[in-house]
Amino acid sequence: MSFHGKNLIAGVPTQSGGTSFKPVSPLNGHPLEPAFSPASLADVNAALISADAAFSSFSRTTAEARAVFLETVASNIVDLGDDLLQRAHHETGLPLDRLTGERGRTVNQLRMFAEVIREGSWRDARIDTALPDRAPLPRPDLRRILVPLGPVIVFGASNFPLAFSVAGGDTASALAAGCPVVVKAHPAHPGTSELVAGAISRALETCGLPAGTFSLLHDNGIEVGLALVNHPLSCGVGFTGSHRGGRALFDAAARRPNPIPVFAEMSSLNPIFLLPGALRERGLQLAGGLKNSITGGVGQFCTKPGLIFAIAGEELTALSGLLEKAIQAVPPAPMLHAGICTSYHSGLKHLAGIEGVVPLAHSEQPEDAAQTQAGASVFSTKSSVFLKEKGLHEEVFGPCSLLVEASDAADLLELARSLDGQLTATVHGTDEDFQQAGPLLEILQRKAGRLLLNGFPTGVEVCASMHHGGPYPATTDTRFTSVGTAAIQRWARPVCFQNFPPEALPEELQNANPRGLLRQVNGQLTKAAAI
Amino acid sequence: MSFHGKNLIAGVPTQSGGTSFKPVSPLNGHPLEPAFSPASLADVNAALISADAAFSSFSRTTAEARAVFLETVASNIVDLGDDLLQRAHHETGLPLDRLTGERGRTVNQLRMFAEVIREGSWRDARIDTALPDRAPLPRPDLRRILVPLGPVIVFGASNFPLAFSVAGGDTASALAAGCPVVVKAHPAHPGTSELVAGAISRALETCGLPAGTFSLLHDNGIEVGLALVNHPLSCGVGFTGSHRGGRALFDAAARRPNPIPVFAEMSSLNPIFLLPGALRERGLQLAGGLKNSITGGVGQFCTKPGLIFAIAGEELTALSGLLEKAIQAVPPAPMLHAGICTSYHSGLKHLAGIEGVVPLAHSEQPEDAAQTQAGASVFSTKSSVFLKEKGLHEEVFGPCSLLVEASDAADLLELARSLDGQLTATVHGTDEDFQQAGPLLEILQRKAGRLLLNGFPTGVEVCASMHHGGPYPATTDTRFTSVGTAAIQRWARPVCFQNFPPEALPEELQNANPRGLLRQVNGQLTKAAAI
Repeated sequence: MSFHGKNLIAGVPTQSGGTSFKPVSPLNGHPLEPAFSPASLADVNAALISADAAFSSFSRTTAEARAVFLETVASNIVDLGDDLLQRAHHETGLPLDRLTGERGRTVNQLRMFAEVIREGSWRDARIDTALPDRAPLPRPDLRRILVPLGPVIVFGASNFPLAFSVAGGDTASALAAGCPVVVKAHPAHPGTSELVAGAISRALETCGLPAGTFSLLHDNGIEVGLALVNHPLSCGVGFTGSHRGGRALFDAAARRPNPIPVFAEMSSLNPIFLLPGALRERGLQLAGGLKNSITGGVGQFCTKPGLIFAIAGEELTALSGLLEKAIQAVPPAPMLHAGICTSYHSGLKHLAGIEGVVPLAHSEQPEDAAQTQAGASVFSTKSSVFLKEKGLHEEVFGPCSLLVEASDAADLLELARSLDGQLTATVHGTDEDFQQAGPLLEILQRKAGRLLLNGFPTGVEVCASMHHGGPYPATTDTRFTSVGTAAIQRWARPVCFQNFPPEALPEELQNANPRGLLRQVNGQLTKAAAI
Repeated sequence: MSFHGKNLIAGVPTQSGGTSFKPVSPLNGHPLEPAFSPASLADVNAALISADAAFSSFSRTTAEARAVFLETVASNIVDLGDDLLQRAHHETGLPLDRLTGERGRTVNQLRMFAEVIREGSWRDARIDTALPDRAPLPRPDLRRILVPLGPVIVFGASNFPLAFSVAGGDTASALAAGCPVVVKAHPAHPGTSELVAGAISRALETCGLPAGTFSLLHDNGIEVGLALVNHPLSCGVGFTGSHRGGRALFDAAARRPNPIPVFAEMSSLNPIFLLPGALRERGLQLAGGLKNSITGGVGQFCTKPGLIFAIAGEELTALSGLLEKAIQAVPPAPMLHAGICTSYHSGLKHLAGIEGVVPLAHSEQPEDAAQTQAGASVFSTKSSVFLKEKGLHEEVFGPCSLLVEASDAADLLELARSLDGQLTATVHGTDEDFQQAGPLLEILQRKAGRLLLNGFPTGVEVCASMHHGGPYPATTDTRFTSVGTAAIQRWARPVCFQNFPPEALPEELQNANPRGLLRQVNGQLTKAAAI
């Protein structure tokens, strides 16, 4: 395995000086070779000028050509073999089996978007043919379709070094839409990023597509990211990470002379409500499920349940006891990098310092700081404390959760009403519980992008029906998802063609419907030709 | 015709003190009775609390119930009869035949959205059924649909006192989606606004829907508008007006602790490119068409062509001469209000003061200031001046345009590249011209939301294929339209239901498909029941 440690701008490894940095393996705290060169502002500019130049031809490639390109990226990633998994393992501390699964998800996402664009209905083609004899005024011929936005900036996420980084869901959906992509690599896994960037770059070459369609830039600070968002040629931004980071990018984009959309998936506590019947009938099962969902991936999923709500009583006391035992038995495990591990421990300290918040359980086995380890933790508190303390409404990223005791059903509703926006909200109950749960579900529907009954929010299916989004601060734009086929809709805008002769129209809008798309023609959804 | 001159909060006329104001008729400069009371911050709060409370039941009404409500609003508006048209005529100076047409458009929009929600495919229902035996992990049952955002703020527009004001396109689409609406009335036509607000309010009563679904607030300053956008219960904003006004609302919404979407349709110069063949063959026709499009509605359409580009030469000189004559013959006419008229005249003065900008023609008949009149104006300049002077890239709202002479075809492309975002861009040419026009159209597609060939941008068809939007500063969100059926998509967000029993799902997501919607079921678009 060899690395050049440089930025990759339109296929060319580029080094501009600046203080290089080495990633540190969370497995042992040792730096990994080589050092990586941060991008300069000139690199940012070069990457966007290349992306903008590439847009002209890349945006006009056929869906089939882009689909083949995405599939080539997928096989190139598979061809990286164990080298990729090993490097990702050393850079992130994630176990190899998890990374193998994540690689599968990554290539499946690329292949899924290839199918989405081959099928073509995402472009929402609409045709209203001319009515030259209409009184009082004739109707012109009008045809509307989604076209790609332009160059898109994607920020690699630390917690999904493959599925939400260089060739992850944001990049795959943007490329599928026809947008060139400039990725800001996450500084915790620059080697993994370089390998995957090579896979994309080689696929562009193999497919005869412009090299400027993709660039990768490194930086272990915030300058390069902000410069990318502020660059006049940038047209949209995809980000998965902290509330502070996402909000900074959103604010920068909103302050531009011409604001651009930012799709930041940021912060969610993913509340779980345990209704009385479920507590009574399934305490053991619930405790096990909660433990798995809180500690899976060392609590580093955006959908980790950070809040558990239930009405106080014997059953809840019993559940607390079971959860306590389950959490104590969880062995500490390495977090993604030292920064996250430090934040996690200060988060725990902050929780423990709030009056009325009681530690319920912590992993019994001691943490090994040299291995960047975190133990699991659960705290408990009363609803009055939760309603008062805004600090308890903030995400602590890592394997911990807060159990909040409500005094009664009305109090449970009050707690639900007090929540900020969330990616998910879950309710566990029996059929009988659900007969009374209408008001709770109604509140939660306004708070969250995904509602689950009798399940756990971790494990986000990649499919057409998934919505991985939600009201602020879960995301900066509740109308869009970052997971599933609908994620492509973030990178497109409609254009209407009025009075265009057939040969000047995109294929998808021509009368004959050569691609066999489902289209809205004169008010009817049809795959037939327009007349 | 009698007016209470008060705000209408959840059906109740409300007066809070504050300095009342009288609209001034542009027809004669005289104030119109009665005085209108501005809303207080307490009124803003009351309107939003009522809207939020109404959301709970209004958002869950059936599509049929909301469709009947929208149709009732439409008939109530028709039932206002000549009173409405007369009042609008006196408040805006617009001629009665134009207002009759605009009323027709307004009620048609309400009826169109009734049909859109009856048909139901706008909700983009998607179902992925459970795969309990899938390895390595089962797939849960996932179902996704668009649900309404919550209370929406709509700002009445001065230039469409009916079709883009109290019951205009923004309000109709938001109500159709299931969102309560609080309208900030435009201070130039508060009486028209009061009449239409009554029509909506009575329809809510007739249909047994919560009165809080609609409120109307007055103000002749900016405080009420900003307070509405900043209110924690507001979930989205629709605005048509100036760049300055729209940007101020966008900035306020982006600075909120939880930012909300602002759909502001603001500023567009709607460039028209005249290619050599068209100039040669259709000069007279082009001059007449340009004159009509520049001066129709006294130039107060968002799609008025404010820029004309062509290559210098004999044919262009001939067209200039024809356009000069046509413009000189245009009689001055009243603008919407004194403020717009003053801005128009300072805009003309500003253009005339730029070195290299030459007045080409002005209405010969003198303007009558007592009647708030504006004459038509055309200026001309060279491309070098246009490329240098940012002031020439700003909209002058009113019946004027700027003819820009390019030196050759390459210069024409350079001019196209220099443009900001636009609602529309138009190219006039012959078949031969269009064989060479690929690069120009490619540039314009990145600049505008609607591209027209051999037409004029004024006259915006209300249909499924219309896109009335465009890159900033044409709008604050290029991905959405404010005209046509797709306008409803601004007011909704997806929610995913995981593992919900059939009876807890919205009708649209139930297996049997009782509403007969086209849905995406396990990857297939179908109207069939899910299994």
